[in-house]
Amino acid sequence: MTANVPVSGTMDATAGAAAKPARVAVVGATGYTGMECLRYLAGHPGVHLCWLGSASHAGEPVAEALPALAGLDLPVLSAPDPRAVAGRAEVAILALPHGAAMEWVPPLLEAGLRVIDLGADFRLRDPDAYARWYHRPHQAPALLAGAAYGLAEHYAPAIARAGLVANPGCYPTAVALPLVPLLAAGLVSPDGIIVDAKSGVSGAGRAPAAGVHFCEVHENLRPYQVAGTHRHLPEMEQVLGDPAGRPVALTFTPHLVPMVRGILATIYATPVPGVGAADLQAALEEAYASSPFVRVLPPGRLPETRHVRGSNFADLAVAVDGRTGRAILTSAIDNLGKGAAGQAVQNLNLMLGWPETWGLEARPVVP
Amino acid sequence: MTANVPVSGTMDATAGAAAKPARVAVVGATGYTGMECLRYLAGHPGVHLCWLGSASHAGEPVAEALPALAGLDLPVLSAPDPRAVAGRAEVAILALPHGAAMEWVPPLLEAGLRVIDLGADFRLRDPDAYARWYHRPHQAPALLAGAAYGLAEHYAPAIARAGLVANPGCYPTAVALPLVPLLAAGLVSPDGIIVDAKSGVSGAGRAPAAGVHFCEVHENLRPYQVAGTHRHLPEMEQVLGDPAGRPVALTFTPHLVPMVRGILATIYATPVPGVGAADLQAALEEAYASSPFVRVLPPGRLPETRHVRGSNFADLAVAVDGRTGRAILTSAIDNLGKGAAGQAVQNLNLMLGWPETWGLEARPVVP
Amino acid sequence: MTANVPVSGTMDATAGAAAKPARVAVVGATGYTGMECLRYLAGHPGVHLCWLGSASHAGEPVAEALPALAGLDLPVLSAPDPRAVAGRAEVAILALPHGAAMEWVPPLLEAGLRVIDLGADFRLRDPDAYARWYHRPHQAPALLAGAAYGLAEHYAPAIARAGLVANPGCYPTAVALPLVPLLAAGLVSPDGIIVDAKSGVSGAGRAPAAGVHFCEVHENLRPYQVAGTHRHLPEMEQVLGDPAGRPVALTFTPHLVPMVRGILATIYATPVPGVGAADLQAALEEAYASSPFVRVLPPGRLPETRHVRGSNFADLAVAVDGRTGRAILTSAIDNLGKGAAGQAVQNLNLMLGWPETWGLEARPVVP
Amino acid sequence: MTANVPVSGTMDATAGAAAKPARVAVVGATGYTGMECLRYLAGHPGVHLCWLGSASHAGEPVAEALPALAGLDLPVLSAPDPRAVAGRAEVAILALPHGAAMEWVPPLLEAGLRVIDLGADFRLRDPDAYARWYHRPHQAPALLAGAAYGLAEHYAPAIARAGLVANPGCYPTAVALPLVPLLAAGLVSPDGIIVDAKSGVSGAGRAPAAGVHFCEVHENLRPYQVAGTHRHLPEMEQVLGDPAGRPVALTFTPHLVPMVRGILATIYATPVPGVGAADLQAALEEAYASSPFVRVLPPGRLPETRHVRGSNFADLAVAVDGRTGRAILTSAIDNLGKGAAGQAVQNLNLMLGWPETWGLEARPVVP
Repeated sequence: MTANVPVSGTMDATAGAAAKPARVAVVGATGYTGMECLRYLAGHPGVHLCWLGSASHAGEPVAEALPALAGLDLPVLSAPDPRAVAGRAEVAILALPHGAAMEWVPPLLEAGLRVIDLGADFRLRDPDAYARWYHRPHQAPALLAGAAYGLAEHYAPAIARAGLVANPGCYPTAVALPLVPLLAAGLVSPDGIIVDAKSGVSGAGRAPAAGVHFCEVHENLRPYQVAGTHRHLPEMEQVLGDPAGRPVALTFTPHLVPMVRGILATIYATPVPGVGAADLQAALEEAYASSPFVRVLPPGRLPETRHVRGSNFADLAVAVDGRTGRAILTSAIDNLGKGAAGQAVQNLNLMLGWPETWGLEARPVVP
Repeated sequence: MTANVPVSGTMDATAGAAAKPARVAVVGATGYTGMECLRYLAGHPGVHLCWLGSASHAGEPVAEALPALAGLDLPVLSAPDPRAVAGRAEVAILALPHGAAMEWVPPLLEAGLRVIDLGADFRLRDPDAYARWYHRPHQAPALLAGAAYGLAEHYAPAIARAGLVANPGCYPTAVALPLVPLLAAGLVSPDGIIVDAKSGVSGAGRAPAAGVHFCEVHENLRPYQVAGTHRHLPEMEQVLGDPAGRPVALTFTPHLVPMVRGILATIYATPVPGVGAADLQAALEEAYASSPFVRVLPPGRLPETRHVRGSNFADLAVAVDGRTGRAILTSAIDNLGKGAAGQAVQNLNLMLGWPETWGLEARPVVP
Repeated sequence: MTANVPVSGTMDATAGAAAKPARVAVVGATGYTGMECLRYLAGHPGVHLCWLGSASHAGEPVAEALPALAGLDLPVLSAPDPRAVAGRAEVAILALPHGAAMEWVPPLLEAGLRVIDLGADFRLRDPDAYARWYHRPHQAPALLAGAAYGLAEHYAPAIARAGLVANPGCYPTAVALPLVPLLAAGLVSPDGIIVDAKSGVSGAGRAPAAGVHFCEVHENLRPYQVAGTHRHLPEMEQVLGDPAGRPVALTFTPHLVPMVRGILATIYATPVPGVGAADLQAALEEAYASSPFVRVLPPGRLPETRHVRGSNFADLAVAVDGRTGRAILTSAIDNLGKGAAGQAVQNLNLMLGWPETWGLEARPVVP
Repeated sequence: MTANVPVSGTMDATAGAAAKPARVAVVGATGYTGMECLRYLAGHPGVHLCWLGSASHAGEPVAEALPALAGLDLPVLSAPDPRAVAGRAEVAILALPHGAAMEWVPPLLEAGLRVIDLGADFRLRDPDAYARWYHRPHQAPALLAGAAYGLAEHYAPAIARAGLVANPGCYPTAVALPLVPLLAAGLVSPDGIIVDAKSGVSGAGRAPAAGVHFCEVHENLRPYQVAGTHRHLPEMEQVLGDPAGRPVALTFTPHLVPMVRGILATIYATPVPGVGAADLQAALEEAYASSPFVRVLPPGRLPETRHVRGSNFADLAVAVDGRTGRAILTSAIDNLGKGAAGQAVQNLNLMLGWPETWGLEARPVVP
């Protein structure tokens, strides 16, 4: 673990509280990422959850729709309605299917709200790329330029002042955290990078489907959308292109693993000549020395998804195969945590000038 | 959910903090219940974790032995030594194998510490029963009378003033919570009660063994220790005998379920003549109206272990089969939470006069 | 294990083959029980699979719809059509949702086919009970009297001559196998029997639904349909009423376990005065001495679902709690094996006069 | 699926039987690969299991040690003793920990037996490599040259005449099947190949250990032995070096997946200029056109471990990422089937001149 005194200090400190809580709405509160937002925000010292939207459970108390959260003082679930949100909240967190957010965002921004979108609608800067990968034209292309990409460790200033934050995808988060600093420092080549990524099933969302039936997933492992067909690919290439200073083309293979939570990315890259494991290790440690959530493991340790389960942590490691010259970067996140709701709360904290760890003190649930 | 305004209020409130933290030691910090104590206590506003003991990881930083907890400001793990604990801590939490605690407790009490024992050594009042069920003589029988049984909802006054608290077993907690109020109110017969209980694997502890090998447990369900042979039986019969006012003999069948956390107890009891489901429901709601952790589900809802996972909640439900006249009581707890570490922290709060929910704000991790 | 020479002999023997294979159709071939019928029947020495029906995969080769079965010489999947089946097959196996079979059976029987129905439509003798529990009137009540109940070990003569066999439900099979012999011998009371049963998820069928989503089931255990509301209840009471000689009312609680295959039934019954564990053990051993698929475990051993996984075995055990006088009967089956497709093949063998084990030689897959 | 008439024919045919069964001993019969040998061999038409060895269960009937196999007519388990085996068997199958087989093989060969070794002792041709990777000197280096490498599809003639067959490792099998034909045909470059492989837990064997504790593995995914440190690496490089015609250096990362059975290998290779996906597809189809166990999936389909579970199948697929020029080869096997016991039985069939599918008719268990 990186020596990281400020981090430990922050995480251990008894949290203070905002003088006046911000009124936050969560739209899509009963999907997996929405539920996880509630789990974090219900204990957030700066947040008043003022409105919760759920098309499938409108009119139900949270205790009925989400029995795990019974006992909390939360508003009844409402039918999604941008005007209702605009009239009540200062910040809206959108946990909606792809394509829905681009209809919600314009009226919310116009009404003066700030918005964090957990979906993909505002992640790609290029509306044509959006249309190509998501098979529909973008409805609000004029807003793309102003959206901050919510990779909290690398875009904090832009996030802090943004009206609209596009929360990164789960795979892109797991891939960008180890690669961005190394590309920015010119330590690995942007060419020929291979990402072999593995995800738990909650990444597929809560809608029932054959592909997420327990009996089709349990005791099974499968790749899917191989050879450049996964929608997170353009997002990854965009976020890696910035530090690389030129376009990056990835080989990306996602796999579905029989577990609920967790993404593990195994990344194969080529160090530039003269760069060794110690250089890569040092670069990662330096990049994340002041981050409360990114833990760079010491040499010889490897990330495991359980060690971040239920938390906003990302664990990173680097090794170099001396026989083949490859760098093997590994990262683990909870796809619902740092890969979605946790990072959204982290972005909320950045936007409102709060300590980055507020509401995110949850320690991983192990075993 | 029972209307439970004070509870919700308590859970939502921004926690305060103790004027001066209590110095707490955890002995057996790298077993499953010990780890869970750390998870809760590392964020407890009244606790300073001053000493952590682990025979198997002595000398290691917590980040090395328990990577999930990396980033917290915790002491290095120490070799277990009662004198070291006595010299540093005000309260000792013992998460040790059965038989070890009865050697630790006498010196700690003599040194003026208060002790919470998560093991079985001080649960049974009768040292002969202990010897019979645990196959060794009790080493400190004189202390049994003074030990408070740590079923927090029912023995709070005794716990608050106790020097030694015997934290209940996981199965006994799941069984006592629904039955104690109904027996105390004379609503169900103490005769002929059947408990069919199911546990996740973490209840078996962290030591490697054939019976907890992934490949022997996964995709498998099995009963074990049937027909009156499980060690939790005398504890359950003791805790039920009190409200019943006379000895209770249970039929108890535990089962091992392929999941990590969770106990579900399905209890079959006979209501006394004239008593119906509504009476049982009302009695449970009344008994737990002011409890922040026991949630009595509304009629028609049933507990699920996931809804309490990673938390200190216990979910209870009652139904009556009109065709056969049986009451079916169901309860769900996290065996490491309300069934062990969570309840230990709750007891710590009671002992030190703190709000019952301090350190226990963790909401269940679902999915 | 019971000394069971003929059984071992049968299972080990190199199978012969029918002089002329029977033409068998499977309707509903891509549901879980239908798939399992294919798995067994594709290797059956007496069967030619002449027609396979699947509404959802009509027109597809089996290798495409069920990649696990690629490489077998099987017919292309067809749209369900009773006339097509009637024109091709001698025996039809129906693996259809409840309610569909009663439309298929009359024309098939009229066309001279023999039928094995894996659904519930012909299990209850009383059409009013069917209407009450399945919420629709029975379409072919005149056929109920002639349907043989396919609990192979207990109704073999009727099955052998039947035109229509109603294959038992999975829970009823697990409950009837241990109880029928004991009730028939008058060794346990038919009063006050409690069945606490646990099932893997494949029992819920293959249709996507919230309740079978991996993330809703994994790491979770829950009871469902408690207090006399499960549809298998009248079937169980019917099959137990016969040997009891009078109506039986059961308390039955099913639970959903996070595994794919397997049912474990834990049954609480009261031995009649003077009857002990040895009597019950002897009665079970005698009842199943010549059965190739029912294994009565020796005293002290308990069934586990893995030990029958992927096979047609049923494992039974009996214990008596001397403290409370209860008999605890436990049984394990694969719900898709002895609880569905395996028993269907066993019934097919009985109907066609073949060795009972033909096509059922699959040994359990452990681990 | 490749058009594969002979295969289908073979698998569907009612098996014949050997005129005189071969007497086969299994040493290490209660480990996972040994158990799986029993599962296959107990139904093998040419095999008489004459002797079963188990150090941990010596003296027990199989039904006691392996309850799943109760009901089969098998010999009592014996304490391992080469002389006992030599005196009884014609063929010995060794399912022993690494290092043990090299003590068993010399006396068995001297006694005239033929041997199939499921361990690693005779896989590497170079005794120095063995010493380096397995940290002990080889005890029988003179036998290495004569051992046939048991990759059945590629070394059948040598296997057929061998006295000693070294059954391949699970990872090497999953890697060699897709790569060997492509390297042999010169279609992909032997340079820069990356293998990202994922295994179920049974690959770690049956001995209890922290790393296979259910609670440490379930809901967890982790890489291990990265950067050229896994013992299967020299075996893979050896088996790929042959068709490549020169040394091959692989980057290999194994991962532990929370499932019992299954290996999925995701392989990244670079096609030589001018070679496209169709060329690779055609080469694989041609290579395995007559293999009963290797199924080359049609373009667009991907292997899943469940589709081979409990069987000797290997499923292969190939895709090319046009954007990056990488070939992505994927393969799925059951690590206990084609990756161990299944391939051992296949080799036995080759050695004794029997049909390759004898005893291996088990169809995958899905779901």
